[in-house]
Amino acid sequence: MVKINSNYERLAGSYLFSTIAKKVRAFEESGPDKSIIRLGIGDVTRPLTPTVIKALHDAVDEMADEKSFRGYAPDLGYDFLRRAICENDFAARSCRVDEDEVFISDGAKPDSGNIQEIFDGKCRIAVCDPVYPVYVDSNVMAGRAGTLGTDGRYSDIVYLPCTAENGFSPQLPDSVCDIIYLCSPNNPTGEAMTKEALQKWVDYANANGSVIIFDAAYEAYISEEGIPHSIYECSGARECAIELRSFSKNAGFTGLRLGYAVVPKDIIRDGVSLNALWARRHSTKYNGAPYIVQRAGEAVYSPEGKMEIRGLVNFYMENASYILSHLKEAGHTVYGGVNSPYVWLAVPSGMTSWDFFDYLLERAGVVGTPGSGFGACGEGYFRLTSFGSHENTREAVDRICAL
Amino acid sequence: MVKINSNYERLAGSYLFSTIAKKVRAFEESGPDKSIIRLGIGDVTRPLTPTVIKALHDAVDEMADEKSFRGYAPDLGYDFLRRAICENDFAARSCRVDEDEVFISDGAKPDSGNIQEIFDGKCRIAVCDPVYPVYVDSNVMAGRAGTLGTDGRYSDIVYLPCTAENGFSPQLPDSVCDIIYLCSPNNPTGEAMTKEALQKWVDYANANGSVIIFDAAYEAYISEEGIPHSIYECSGARECAIELRSFSKNAGFTGLRLGYAVVPKDIIRDGVSLNALWARRHSTKYNGAPYIVQRAGEAVYSPEGKMEIRGLVNFYMENASYILSHLKEAGHTVYGGVNSPYVWLAVPSGMTSWDFFDYLLERAGVVGTPGSGFGACGEGYFRLTSFGSHENTREAVDRICAL
Repeated sequence: MVKINSNYERLAGSYLFSTIAKKVRAFEESGPDKSIIRLGIGDVTRPLTPTVIKALHDAVDEMADEKSFRGYAPDLGYDFLRRAICENDFAARSCRVDEDEVFISDGAKPDSGNIQEIFDGKCRIAVCDPVYPVYVDSNVMAGRAGTLGTDGRYSDIVYLPCTAENGFSPQLPDSVCDIIYLCSPNNPTGEAMTKEALQKWVDYANANGSVIIFDAAYEAYISEEGIPHSIYECSGARECAIELRSFSKNAGFTGLRLGYAVVPKDIIRDGVSLNALWARRHSTKYNGAPYIVQRAGEAVYSPEGKMEIRGLVNFYMENASYILSHLKEAGHTVYGGVNSPYVWLAVPSGMTSWDFFDYLLERAGVVGTPGSGFGACGEGYFRLTSFGSHENTREAVDRICAL
Repeated sequence: MVKINSNYERLAGSYLFSTIAKKVRAFEESGPDKSIIRLGIGDVTRPLTPTVIKALHDAVDEMADEKSFRGYAPDLGYDFLRRAICENDFAARSCRVDEDEVFISDGAKPDSGNIQEIFDGKCRIAVCDPVYPVYVDSNVMAGRAGTLGTDGRYSDIVYLPCTAENGFSPQLPDSVCDIIYLCSPNNPTGEAMTKEALQKWVDYANANGSVIIFDAAYEAYISEEGIPHSIYECSGARECAIELRSFSKNAGFTGLRLGYAVVPKDIIRDGVSLNALWARRHSTKYNGAPYIVQRAGEAVYSPEGKMEIRGLVNFYMENASYILSHLKEAGHTVYGGVNSPYVWLAVPSGMTSWDFFDYLLERAGVVGTPGSGFGACGEGYFRLTSFGSHENTREAVDRICAL
């Protein structure tokens, strides 16, 4: 008789977005006098840019012709894309990343879920709190999390509180953690780690033989000096850090699916190169992103592509700026929104995150995401995203400010 | 200190295709008088068909417009594609598959590598010998395989010999196996299981609480009556079988990446629905195939799409037929090639599979795949594929026959 993977039974229910959807539906059915504006989900809304569209059409035409048709992609991804990545995302920032250290994938979500697989089942995991749920859930599935407590925390995971008190920057733990997930600029808090703060983590990892999984999916939103765009700006990071990148939020590829992982050849653990392990995992269980999508990714790095992508990011950051300044003016305490498309709002005192969700929905017809859905330290906070239209975003903010 | 997943150290080297590449390179550098013809790799060569190309262009245009732009796909895949699959691949063959039992993916390789994850780490695995390596390697990585013997077999895996003696149809094992991987039409042997033979496996699985992973990636090549196109043609399969399908070999999507898994809601193990487990895995670690590729998949099921796909399959099957008939005529013993694009050639007596590889390369400039690369029972056989041009295929066969 087959037995199932019983670790799945330890997963906390994924009720956050389904509960939100239910509440919104109930409100809609109550016949509200206001239209509903959604600033809840982190999905982009602007269309793909002309250069990307042209690259897609051109690549589709190549696939229509026997002479230029492409079948299976190379295991690590096409050279043209890995070369563009190395030049533009790393060499241009004086970071050394070799082409055979870049693994093209279908996004940062699958990479962040799959990367744990190359490590031992007993590794001790550390995550920020609040946190992007995939880091935790993929480790629960792999049996590294222990049991789920009534506080929503797993017994074997080390949680690193990110709160207003520490500037939302995770502090080094007392105990040794083997694998540390860091996301900067952060989802959901919208705050980014300084180079100094990140360097401390790199030093900690090298001192303890740990590995950092650095999720840089929101890198394009960095607007301030002193915030590292890549963990490889830190000294020693090539010996301890894997970096995950995505085309979703900079180039709007959420529906196109493209990302990559950097696994430097210098990370050696148990005498084994993590680069070789990930290469084996990649070639055994994955078959590459579509050729046409890899060509679209290449187009993002052309001069026109770069300008267009900058335009997309600026569009969303205008929203962030509007949310931030107007909510502040109205007396709210807000974080993030400067190096990130997310604004992290402290809910009025006496309210929980869910209280505020209900309040905002019923009184203003605005949907956001309760911070407690991202972890215990998210309680008392609320996430607003900048991915809507200018018109909707302003209307939503004006409604909140008028409460 | 991080420890790595030590199961990776138990993986057999994946030297098959790299060894082939090395030998071919050395031969090329020796300045041969013949051009080299490759009938080794199972990758298609015909371009995408007009209906698929049109669907891709149309979907790309949708992504260029704010009003029709699509971001994140629904977890299970788009309704339009899952509906087309249920109607055309199953209802049309009187098989019941519900839309919420279809999980759109980026191909049968990732699905066949990932599916083991929802099962317990101690499940006993059975695979055919010879076998598609991903079934074995993904279980080695998960720690289910035991130790690698000098015969190339893992101590904890049950191997089901598929040889000329049993018509290349796996026989029921003496011991109870929990998870059984079956691929029909088969890669690499090219032979297909009859409905009667497959029904025996379904009955075995239901009697023992086992689960069958049925890989039907080559379904479109079935030309004979009595060969099931889906395992759900067998009675009781909804209670024990997961089916994997691919758009790679019928519609030429090896470079586009699209497939799907069917996990019926009726498979309950340990009181848990495997459909719910796979849904959780899918939504946690995967973010869907690109919208434009899912539209391309939908186009395959249009009346024009179906005709074009039939044309592609027929094109390759003309090659298979030429290989089969001419090699037979020349006195070779050959299998497969009737319900599959693969021809499985018995190598001349006194030769190993690798001997024959060298012989064919040096004497005829033809590259195939040594059967022993797929498992111990593949020794003495040789795989030829039908995915080349008519001209190359005929030239290769004529050269072999002239030896």
